[in-house]
Amino acid sequence: MTDAYIVGVDMIKFGRFPERGVPEIGAESALLALDDCGLEIQKMEALYCGNLGQAGAMVGQRILQQIGQTGIPVVNCANACATGATAFREAWMAVKAGVYDLVLAVGVEQMGKGLLGGGGGGKGIPKEGMLGSGTMPAVFAEAGMEHARNYGTTFEQFAKVSVKNHHHSTMNPKAMYQIETPLDVVMNAEMIAYPNTKLMCSVNVDGSAAAVIASGKKARELGLMGRAVKVSASALTSDPWQERDLVMPDVNTCTRRAAQTAFEMAGIGPQDVDLVELHDCFATAEILHYENLGLCADGEAGRMIDEGETSLGGRIPVNVSGGLLSKGHPLGATGIANLYEVSTHLRGEAGKRQVEGAKVGMTHVIGLGSACGIHILEKVAA
Amino acid sequence: MTDAYIVGVDMIKFGRFPERGVPEIGAESALLALDDCGLEIQKMEALYCGNLGQAGAMVGQRILQQIGQTGIPVVNCANACATGATAFREAWMAVKAGVYDLVLAVGVEQMGKGLLGGGGGGKGIPKEGMLGSGTMPAVFAEAGMEHARNYGTTFEQFAKVSVKNHHHSTMNPKAMYQIETPLDVVMNAEMIAYPNTKLMCSVNVDGSAAAVIASGKKARELGLMGRAVKVSASALTSDPWQERDLVMPDVNTCTRRAAQTAFEMAGIGPQDVDLVELHDCFATAEILHYENLGLCADGEAGRMIDEGETSLGGRIPVNVSGGLLSKGHPLGATGIANLYEVSTHLRGEAGKRQVEGAKVGMTHVIGLGSACGIHILEKVAA
Repeated sequence: MTDAYIVGVDMIKFGRFPERGVPEIGAESALLALDDCGLEIQKMEALYCGNLGQAGAMVGQRILQQIGQTGIPVVNCANACATGATAFREAWMAVKAGVYDLVLAVGVEQMGKGLLGGGGGGKGIPKEGMLGSGTMPAVFAEAGMEHARNYGTTFEQFAKVSVKNHHHSTMNPKAMYQIETPLDVVMNAEMIAYPNTKLMCSVNVDGSAAAVIASGKKARELGLMGRAVKVSASALTSDPWQERDLVMPDVNTCTRRAAQTAFEMAGIGPQDVDLVELHDCFATAEILHYENLGLCADGEAGRMIDEGETSLGGRIPVNVSGGLLSKGHPLGATGIANLYEVSTHLRGEAGKRQVEGAKVGMTHVIGLGSACGIHILEKVAA
Repeated sequence: MTDAYIVGVDMIKFGRFPERGVPEIGAESALLALDDCGLEIQKMEALYCGNLGQAGAMVGQRILQQIGQTGIPVVNCANACATGATAFREAWMAVKAGVYDLVLAVGVEQMGKGLLGGGGGGKGIPKEGMLGSGTMPAVFAEAGMEHARNYGTTFEQFAKVSVKNHHHSTMNPKAMYQIETPLDVVMNAEMIAYPNTKLMCSVNVDGSAAAVIASGKKARELGLMGRAVKVSASALTSDPWQERDLVMPDVNTCTRRAAQTAFEMAGIGPQDVDLVELHDCFATAEILHYENLGLCADGEAGRMIDEGETSLGGRIPVNVSGGLLSKGHPLGATGIANLYEVSTHLRGEAGKRQVEGAKVGMTHVIGLGSACGIHILEKVAA
C-alpha cells in the first residue's frame, strides 16, 4: 500500500453564515487547504465531500463549480457526525489504492438552529427526526450518569471539561468562541439535561474544513514533505442504527473497537499519543472517551480532568482547539477540522496553543451508535 | 494494486413495495448476493451503501441491523443516478487499497410516484427540486432533438430503443416488466417530451442490488474464482452541477471522458466489449451513449439501432436486461443492478437472454451533469 500524507489542510473560522450557501462555505475551506500547500485546484485528481444535510444534492460538484474545477471524480459521503472523517478516509483510501496521487477532501455543514440541525428525515423512517433532533442531550446525560454511578464522577468534573475546552479556544482564532467560562459559570448555566448545562453542549455552527492528501511519491515530487503529516492509521466502525442502540454502551464499544484497530494499524499505543481531538459533543462524552480511547484506565477519567492531564501543558492535551464545545460542531466538517488541528500541532504551527514537541496525534468522531472514525497522524521526521 | 473481483452479486426483482422500508429492500439484495457466493454476512469486512433519497439516514447501518451484522465500517454514498456505481467503486477501491479482502456493496432506492422520485431537496438550494424533478424529460428530449438535427436521427429510431429494451426484458424475470411493446405502441404512447413517449422514459420503481467484492487472494482462498468476475476498470467523472449544465453536451462529455479512462485502465477498446448495460433513462439517451461510449462513430447511432446491432444476437447487445426503460430505474440501485446483469452474462448464467460467449462487459450510469460511472468487467479465464 502507498503511504498517504496530509500536505495541505485548513478550516474556516466556524460561525453562523445564514446568508451563504453550503457550496460557498465548502469552497472557502477547499481554497484555504489548497493555498496551504500552494497547489491549484486543477492539480486535484478527485474530491471526496462530506456533508450530512444535503448529501443527495451533489454538494461536492457544487463546491467544484464554485472554484473552477470540472470533470474530476466526486464522491459525496454521509455518516452522521462521522461524515467528515468518512470523506477523509475515502480520500485516503483512494491514495492508498494507488488510484490517485492527489486528492481533496472537504467537510461542510450549515446547521439549523435547534438542538441538532439538519432535519434530514426521509420517508419510511418516521422516528428518525425525533431521535436525531430530540434525544441527543438525554442520551449523553444518561451516559454521564452511568459513569457517575460506576465511578463516582461528579458534576464538577464533567463541568471542568467545558472550562478546559473553552479556555483552549481562547487561543484558537478559528474557534466559534474565544471566551473563558469559569467553573461556576459553567455549572450555573441553563441546565439542558443533567449533568450537562448549556455550556457543556456542543455549539451548533456552520463551518467547513478541507485537506489535500498526497501519496508519498507525489509529496516528495512536489517538494511538500517538509510540512507533510503522515496518516498512520484510519479506522471506521459502526453499530446497527436502531432505537435500542441510542444508549451509551454501544457508543463506547464503537469507539473502543475503532481505537484498537487504529493503534494496531499505526503500530503504537495510547502512551505514544501527544494530543487528541475527540468528540466532545457533550462534556460527559469527553469523559467517557478518555477511557474508550485508552488515555487512562476505566474509572480514571474524573481524576484525569481534575489533575489537568488533558489541559494544554498536561500529560496528554485533549481538544486544544476548543473542541465541539467551543470551537463548534458543524457535523460534516468536524472530522476534517479535527485533522486540521492535529496537523497544525505536528507542524509546530499552532501558536499560543501549541502542544510542545507533538509528534503523534489522534482524531476521533462518532455518529451516535452508527459510525466511529479514528485517525492517527504522525509528524514526518525531518 | 490488488486485483478485485465480484464473487457474489444479485438483485431483487424490481417493483413497487410501498409497504416495505428502504433497509428491508436493501437487506434482501444483500442476502441474495451473499447467498450467491455462499458467504455469511459475518465474513464481510465493510459495507458501502448507495442510496440517494436518504443518504443522511444511515441506510447502510440500518441494512446491517436487518441482517445481523454489527460493527463493521459502513460508508453511505450518494451521487445522483451514479450513486450505486459510486458505492461499488468505493468498495472496489477499499479492496484495491489492500485495506479489506471482502467488502459488500449495496445500492437501494424507494422511489416516489412523480416523474422523478425522491424529493431530496435541501435548504439553500431552492432550484433543486424543480430542476431534479421537473426537467429531466425536457433535457433528454432536447438532447435527442439535437442529435436529430445533427445526424437526421428519426422518431422511429429513438422509439426502436424502447422496442428493443422491452423485448429484452421479456427474458429477464427480475425486470419490472416482461411485456413486448411493438413499434406502433411505443410511438403512439402518451407523448411526454418529443421525441420521448411514455414508453421511452425509464420506469420509476423500487429496487436494490448488491455485490460482494473480493481480493484475488481471498477469492482463491475461498474457492470462489470459478464464478468470479474481474473488475478491470472503474472510472468516475463529474461536471459542475449548475443550471447551465443541464444540457446534453455536458452529459456527453462526462461519459466520453469516463469511457476513455475506463478503456485505458482495462487496456482494451470498445471493439473488445461483448455487451453493455448503459444509462437509458430515456430512449434518446441510449442513442447518444452508443456514440459517447465509442460503440459506433458519431452520427452512426441511428443506423446501429436500425440494423439491430445492439439487440440480443447483434454485434454488441445493449441493455439485454431491459434497461432502465423496462427493467426499471431505482436510482441508487441501478449502478449495481447493471453490474449484476453483466456479471451474469460473463458467468454464462443469463438463460434465454444470454449473450453467447461474452467475455468482456461494460456498465454505465450517469447522474445528469454531475457524475458518470463506468465499470469494465471481464470473465475470469477457466
